[in-house]
Amino acid sequence: MFKRLIFLVSLFLMASSVLFAEQLKRAKYVFLFIGDGMSLPQRMIAQNYLKSLGGDDLLINSLPIQSITFTKSADSLITDSAASATAIACGEKTKNHYIGVDSTGNPLTSTAYVAKKSGRKVGIITSVTLTHATPAAFYAHNSNRGNEYEIALDLVNSGFDYFAGGGIAQHDNKNAKSFKGDIYSLAKNSGYSVFVGEKDFAEISGQKKVIAVENKGGAMPYFIDKKDGLRLADFTRKGIELLDNPKGFFMMVEGGKIDWMCHANDVATTIGEILEFDRAVGEAFAFAKKHPNETLIVITGDHETGGLTLGFAGTGYKLYPERLKNQSCSYDSFKNKIKDFVKSNSEAVFDDIKPIIEKSFALKFGAPKDEPMRLSTAETNELKSAFERLKKNPDSSALANSALRIFNNKAGIAWTSNAHTALPVATSAYGVNSSIFSGMFDNTDIAKNLKAVLEK
Amino acid sequence: MFKRLIFLVSLFLMASSVLFAEQLKRAKYVFLFIGDGMSLPQRMIAQNYLKSLGGDDLLINSLPIQSITFTKSADSLITDSAASATAIACGEKTKNHYIGVDSTGNPLTSTAYVAKKSGRKVGIITSVTLTHATPAAFYAHNSNRGNEYEIALDLVNSGFDYFAGGGIAQHDNKNAKSFKGDIYSLAKNSGYSVFVGEKDFAEISGQKKVIAVENKGGAMPYFIDKKDGLRLADFTRKGIELLDNPKGFFMMVEGGKIDWMCHANDVATTIGEILEFDRAVGEAFAFAKKHPNETLIVITGDHETGGLTLGFAGTGYKLYPERLKNQSCSYDSFKNKIKDFVKSNSEAVFDDIKPIIEKSFALKFGAPKDEPMRLSTAETNELKSAFERLKKNPDSSALANSALRIFNNKAGIAWTSNAHTALPVATSAYGVNSSIFSGMFDNTDIAKNLKAVLEK
Repeated sequence: MFKRLIFLVSLFLMASSVLFAEQLKRAKYVFLFIGDGMSLPQRMIAQNYLKSLGGDDLLINSLPIQSITFTKSADSLITDSAASATAIACGEKTKNHYIGVDSTGNPLTSTAYVAKKSGRKVGIITSVTLTHATPAAFYAHNSNRGNEYEIALDLVNSGFDYFAGGGIAQHDNKNAKSFKGDIYSLAKNSGYSVFVGEKDFAEISGQKKVIAVENKGGAMPYFIDKKDGLRLADFTRKGIELLDNPKGFFMMVEGGKIDWMCHANDVATTIGEILEFDRAVGEAFAFAKKHPNETLIVITGDHETGGLTLGFAGTGYKLYPERLKNQSCSYDSFKNKIKDFVKSNSEAVFDDIKPIIEKSFALKFGAPKDEPMRLSTAETNELKSAFERLKKNPDSSALANSALRIFNNKAGIAWTSNAHTALPVATSAYGVNSSIFSGMFDNTDIAKNLKAVLEK
Repeated sequence: MFKRLIFLVSLFLMASSVLFAEQLKRAKYVFLFIGDGMSLPQRMIAQNYLKSLGGDDLLINSLPIQSITFTKSADSLITDSAASATAIACGEKTKNHYIGVDSTGNPLTSTAYVAKKSGRKVGIITSVTLTHATPAAFYAHNSNRGNEYEIALDLVNSGFDYFAGGGIAQHDNKNAKSFKGDIYSLAKNSGYSVFVGEKDFAEISGQKKVIAVENKGGAMPYFIDKKDGLRLADFTRKGIELLDNPKGFFMMVEGGKIDWMCHANDVATTIGEILEFDRAVGEAFAFAKKHPNETLIVITGDHETGGLTLGFAGTGYKLYPERLKNQSCSYDSFKNKIKDFVKSNSEAVFDDIKPIIEKSFALKFGAPKDEPMRLSTAETNELKSAFERLKKNPDSSALANSALRIFNNKAGIAWTSNAHTALPVATSAYGVNSSIFSGMFDNTDIAKNLKAVLEK
């Protein structure tokens, strides 16, 4: 009771310091960046990795406002991306799997709609599909995140100015109950100009309503697998160019594949995605420098994924982030390589795939004892046994899981889950009104604060 | 380079807002609380546990200032408690194992000495031994944290006003190179009044220099094992009573056994220690309410221990903190129970120790499938196999480790290490000048900020 009182008094003081003493200023340009599955462990391993190679801090870690954000959903201490995106977008807790609706299914109003109503243009960007949970919570209302065709109909009807990044999942899903035609055709009928791929992307210039996707129906590739081509920063920069106007804009940018590779417990690919995300934030930051009294940038995560820890029983007090640098492909890509190899070499024995493992993770078979990436006999046997099982059942997951676990452990990294965890995330902010994002608060407060800013 | 510049500009703005715009005010009373091994996962599982039983937030989580603190030491991304305590106490990075000296062995000045010089009285309180790394960094100078007899000599020579909590390790270590007699005798010769145990404690009243210990040479017991008797909050309250004077005081209070049970991966005992720590903070908070314009309270951790995660592969998106409530003894106490039982029952079979396991962790052998604490056949076999090994080699660690891992997993909790990790910690603050502890900063900044406050 006593503690609750302190808490309420503190909240009141914080709120009143914002609302009365300081007063919110108008932020013409508002950016919200969401790293899916990005909590403190993810941010810190990316930073430690960068610094181990002689680099700087992550931009997101060097901004002046840094705070702690709770993530639980209405029905679980561990949220999914739908409930947390709804909380961050709309300011209310909802159940896992719910998109832009409250726990009873009633539609909620997102910051994006508040921004639109204020006269600002709106952009929604993601590295995964545009109909995935996080972007969807800003424009859609559905109590099942899996209904991506219906979610895409909401996208078309949103009237938002710019959708970019990954494609539209289920865009031509003729089995959807409410099927009305391919989403891209519907979007064109509603006035959207559609651009698919890098060549098309170069044609974007001044169109009013734009959908710009890396490919038609899937997520963007992992940075570790494809370093050229369209990246999250390109879509962000183009968004700034398209949306800038006298009334300002609101832009949500999601680094969505951070989460995916945390589910796979692949830390090096995760780091690549965080660096990509940080570069996208860099585009907003460069813009904010040109518009210093008009821009607010907020960066958050929606939850932690994987139970990532920066330490491991086998390496004690040592962490070796620099050992992660030689991983050359993602978990997904490794699985495919192995699967393809076994498919086209039915007589393959374990020795035949050793070079793939060595090239993918810089692990070394039969190396001297002082070689840090040396595979021990036990580790070699574990990989061999996973390979033997793969030959019987063409699923390369077990081999990929073993190889990655061994590789991560050598860097002092460990994971405890393939799902999300309840660890809070870090929120960072820069620019006009950024101080209202200080301290420790709930993810719903991000939407509440942003709505207050966007109503001005 | 660009990012570094932003960072420096941000730091300058933050510093100038403190030093020029706001100006530091005099804080007559300064409290520093350190939860050893307490990072965000520890704080959050304790809070989730409390709330699952219908309780409030932790007091430390409800304070208005909440920030993120980096912990690495001079020679490792993963710090030990000596280097981090030196950073927090003195404001400089040093090597692991070094106490109150820099990386070359030169003595550093702690906030406690700055406070003493300012005319304030000084109190050092801990739930572990007074010569342990964290308290030692505030009064001692030694490049080996293991030299606890020499560290205790520094304690006697510090001239500080109040030492309390656990005992003085090695206090009569005749093998110490610099042995000069029992530390308690030396302390008495230097003007300290010494109080050992609960009965003695009641006699403390107005003495000038006081050493008050729960026992002579060891840590205080775990709360889960002994709920009555002297607790950290008692030593804190008594410190406030003894140290209050017109020139004010500085008090460092460590919850030292949070770390110990994170090393053992025992989450329920860890939670008990965090709640004890929170109650000690409550004493300072009650005092601050009576002296609202004169008191600063800062709470931090020195590092994360154990790679604790609030989620686990086997429980997916569910966390069950309420399942932790029926653990009835600590890891250490369980080990001793098992060891004693086997010692006095040489013919014991596995069935004989099942009641000890069931009573200690509320795990259930042979229970129906819908019983959450049911031990599966695989789990039962694991425990049985650990018991068989114990009968050959009288070390109950493996059995205790298995039982705890199984128990924690049933609550959705997992760990990755028996050492520390590189995860940042949370720092909280309340009262005069508390806003200078906002944002994301290095552990050395805590000492730098506190010194600036204490120099006034």
